[in-house]
Amino acid sequence: MPDLDPEEFRRLAHRYVDWVADHRAGLASRPVRDDVVPGSVRAAFAAEAAEEPQELEALLDRVDDVVVPADTRWQHPGFHAFFPANASLTSLLGEIVAGGLGPQGMLWSTSPACTEVEQAVTDQLARALGLGEAFTHTGGGGGSIQDSASSAALVALLAALHRASGGTWRDTGVSGTERVYVTAETHSSLAKAVRVAGLGERGLRVVPFAPGTRTMDPLALAAMLEVDASQGLVPVMVCATVGTTGTGAVDPVREIAVAAASHGAWTHVDAAWAGVAALCPEFRHLVDGVELVDSFCTDAHKWLLTAFDASLFWVRDATALPAALSLTPAYLRDSASDSGAVVDYRDWQVPLGRRFRAMKLWAVLHGQGLEGLRAHLRGHVALAAELAGRVRAHPGLELAAEPSLSLVCLRVRADDDGPTRQLLAEVNATGRAFLSPTEIDGRFVIRVAFGALTTSGQHLDELWTILTRSPAIGAAR
Amino acid sequence: MPDLDPEEFRRLAHRYVDWVADHRAGLASRPVRDDVVPGSVRAAFAAEAAEEPQELEALLDRVDDVVVPADTRWQHPGFHAFFPANASLTSLLGEIVAGGLGPQGMLWSTSPACTEVEQAVTDQLARALGLGEAFTHTGGGGGSIQDSASSAALVALLAALHRASGGTWRDTGVSGTERVYVTAETHSSLAKAVRVAGLGERGLRVVPFAPGTRTMDPLALAAMLEVDASQGLVPVMVCATVGTTGTGAVDPVREIAVAAASHGAWTHVDAAWAGVAALCPEFRHLVDGVELVDSFCTDAHKWLLTAFDASLFWVRDATALPAALSLTPAYLRDSASDSGAVVDYRDWQVPLGRRFRAMKLWAVLHGQGLEGLRAHLRGHVALAAELAGRVRAHPGLELAAEPSLSLVCLRVRADDDGPTRQLLAEVNATGRAFLSPTEIDGRFVIRVAFGALTTSGQHLDELWTILTRSPAIGAAR
Ligand SMILES: Cc1ncc(COP(=O)(O)O)c(C=O)c1O
Ligand SMILES: Cc1ncc(COP(=O)(O)O)c(C=O)c1O
Repeated sequence: MPDLDPEEFRRLAHRYVDWVADHRAGLASRPVRDDVVPGSVRAAFAAEAAEEPQELEALLDRVDDVVVPADTRWQHPGFHAFFPANASLTSLLGEIVAGGLGPQGMLWSTSPACTEVEQAVTDQLARALGLGEAFTHTGGGGGSIQDSASSAALVALLAALHRASGGTWRDTGVSGTERVYVTAETHSSLAKAVRVAGLGERGLRVVPFAPGTRTMDPLALAAMLEVDASQGLVPVMVCATVGTTGTGAVDPVREIAVAAASHGAWTHVDAAWAGVAALCPEFRHLVDGVELVDSFCTDAHKWLLTAFDASLFWVRDATALPAALSLTPAYLRDSASDSGAVVDYRDWQVPLGRRFRAMKLWAVLHGQGLEGLRAHLRGHVALAAELAGRVRAHPGLELAAEPSLSLVCLRVRADDDGPTRQLLAEVNATGRAFLSPTEIDGRFVIRVAFGALTTSGQHLDELWTILTRSPAIGAAR
Repeated sequence: MPDLDPEEFRRLAHRYVDWVADHRAGLASRPVRDDVVPGSVRAAFAAEAAEEPQELEALLDRVDDVVVPADTRWQHPGFHAFFPANASLTSLLGEIVAGGLGPQGMLWSTSPACTEVEQAVTDQLARALGLGEAFTHTGGGGGSIQDSASSAALVALLAALHRASGGTWRDTGVSGTERVYVTAETHSSLAKAVRVAGLGERGLRVVPFAPGTRTMDPLALAAMLEVDASQGLVPVMVCATVGTTGTGAVDPVREIAVAAASHGAWTHVDAAWAGVAALCPEFRHLVDGVELVDSFCTDAHKWLLTAFDASLFWVRDATALPAALSLTPAYLRDSASDSGAVVDYRDWQVPLGRRFRAMKLWAVLHGQGLEGLRAHLRGHVALAAELAGRVRAHPGLELAAEPSLSLVCLRVRADDDGPTRQLLAEVNATGRAFLSPTEIDGRFVIRVAFGALTTSGQHLDELWTILTRSPAIGAAR
């Protein structure tokens, strides 16, 4: 038989699970990131795949030899770069069940359970985040699990294009007059979506920041929409970001949605990183104004314990995505679909096939409860507040932006960027912490994004020691 | 701590693995598909997520109660609908390791191992399939693992648009004159890609079949390209399908590529289902002419034992996708990327983030070897040949198309479609086999697509018994 039989699987999978448990238990004692020579991993593979089956126990040795020493450890407690990508062990339990079931949920009928669990958990989360009933499947809208916030932004844009065209986009495509509004802090995935949709760079309009902020100026937006519309351009979508990648800035969703609506434009909220924080009452203000928007995205695969890929994406109008994206050849025709009583998620995304992604999210919700999730989020926010306080009090360091949730942007007090660049290189060279840079007003800045699964006060202290003993700070003073 | 500690995970994951082994062991005794009332799964969920953490052992009981009785069992040996979606247990071992490591491979530097294992296994498979060195990373091209053949077709089209525009597409978008060439048998994902890219339905040109076939007529294609180009339209891409979804038809890749090239159009081969068969020398002719094409896609997640999602996608020019899709904000700038010595797979796809998909594919290659994979494929092809022979010999049934690899299209000998529709309904109602329909020349047809993990001669016999005892056949005679 060309697959394992269940008993062989049982025996081997116990070994594999043990390997994972051991790997995680030993993670903190490894560097956050290995120093890898490009090509060295590939060089460990033969040019040709083996003809004969090989022992699957031995694959773990190969992984130990080839993969483990050449990784960047996103699950390490010293990983504070980019935004987190929580691949929790709870989520992995869900993934094991999903893999065991092995459905392909392109249509409701090809796995009713896969589709409806997704509906159920996105409804629960819409409520837990305070999005309101309008975004639930019972309230006329609905949630889905996309692979990424980038794909969510793309399908939001496609639905927006279709709506703005009065339903002709499917047939005639874009006209070149469509415009999408963002800021200089908006994630690059929006520019990518605009490009993919055929609008090109010129389809993107960058709205200025409100004075003294890094958030979209709603007055400037209104003016831009007005001018563009008067010149025959078509404002299709405005993206409000809740928690920008660079600095965690939060655009004024309510004002943006009002301005967009007055031109019939779709408002998409990209809260890929920060949105999940709205599970906590004290951060609920992050979704203020969401009742006015058309779509909302936040990634469970960043800071919400659910392994990539699990981007949560809600629309207010459940018919918007199928209207834009559906396409039914004879080999996909289905009586349940025709009945209108079910959701076929293939019409909510670009890919046809679908994994049972909701299973891992369900495992996380079940195993942590909302309280566990809130504790996870609050822990990292507290670390960021503590770090920000120490930076403020330190003569050689300064905050480059106000801290936002678990994100702190800092730099060395100096007239040029040299010391900050040096500081980043030194921190990362220790292997005990890993940070990534950004730019603010043309200046080089270090981002500290807390959020890994096991990061705690001890890791903050360790980072602080590394930062403050750096010669880069001394040199600048 | 808001995640399991490694020891809790070890204990629970052993339970979860046992659950999977038991589920698979009992699979064949369940129906292929449950009769589910829309909404019944959702109804088993509370409106609000639980506040408190719950025992993760208990989640398995919930899965048994809610999910297991409401599924369509793609891994069941009686599943012959659509195309298979092999979620092998070997692949699941790889997924467990990938989940344990938990990297996010958007850039080479964010997980060198994740990126380079993907390069290594796609290079190995390019050779094993006979695609030629030009499609390997060492040969100037390269492979990637996309989530789906749909997404692969989309990114192929985006690269084609960029190339056809002379490099202006990124900035100016589409002009509305671009055209993409397919046939009536081409998978709907191509029409979807054309729509997503902003060309609309009118961007799609349906080339007629060669007389007496269901494959693209290269002469008709050449004529269409000529006329379109002379009218100022821009032939951007031609899609040749190797193994269409409806009937398994194989377009003449070589002639198509020659015609396309003479107008500077990109040739994409969609071999989503059938391409993997080129691992067998006797089916190597399926990739004849591939040395002339620009991109080639086949799904490891259909018939090659690797769980969704794992669509293999190769391009001849490794710079084509980054040229079209790259976009580097300050927070993603990276010295390894700047060095040009590495591949950043984020520039090969729409999403930013990436899972370690190559790990499950590596597990499959390791555990089965190419010989095991060939045995898997050949077994199903033999079943189809046997079924086709029986259909030919049966007075009440007929083949609706020549069998192709493991796909057989049949119908009841009758003047109208009623008996065939009835036969399909009867087969599916037994719960012992699950088939799906298509249309050929306006007639309703039953597809039998062998390919599930454990389907063997015994299941063919069972299907044959069910088919031939149906009153639908008798009624028609
Ligand atoms: C604000 C924001 N939006 C979108 C994304 C893209 O995320 P994904 O990988 O889910 O596409 C990111 C990633 O960091 C982000 O920070
Ligand atoms: C020929 C062909 N192309 C593309 C696809 C789409 O597959 P995916 O789910 O990988 O996008 C299919 C699915 O059956 C197919 O048969």
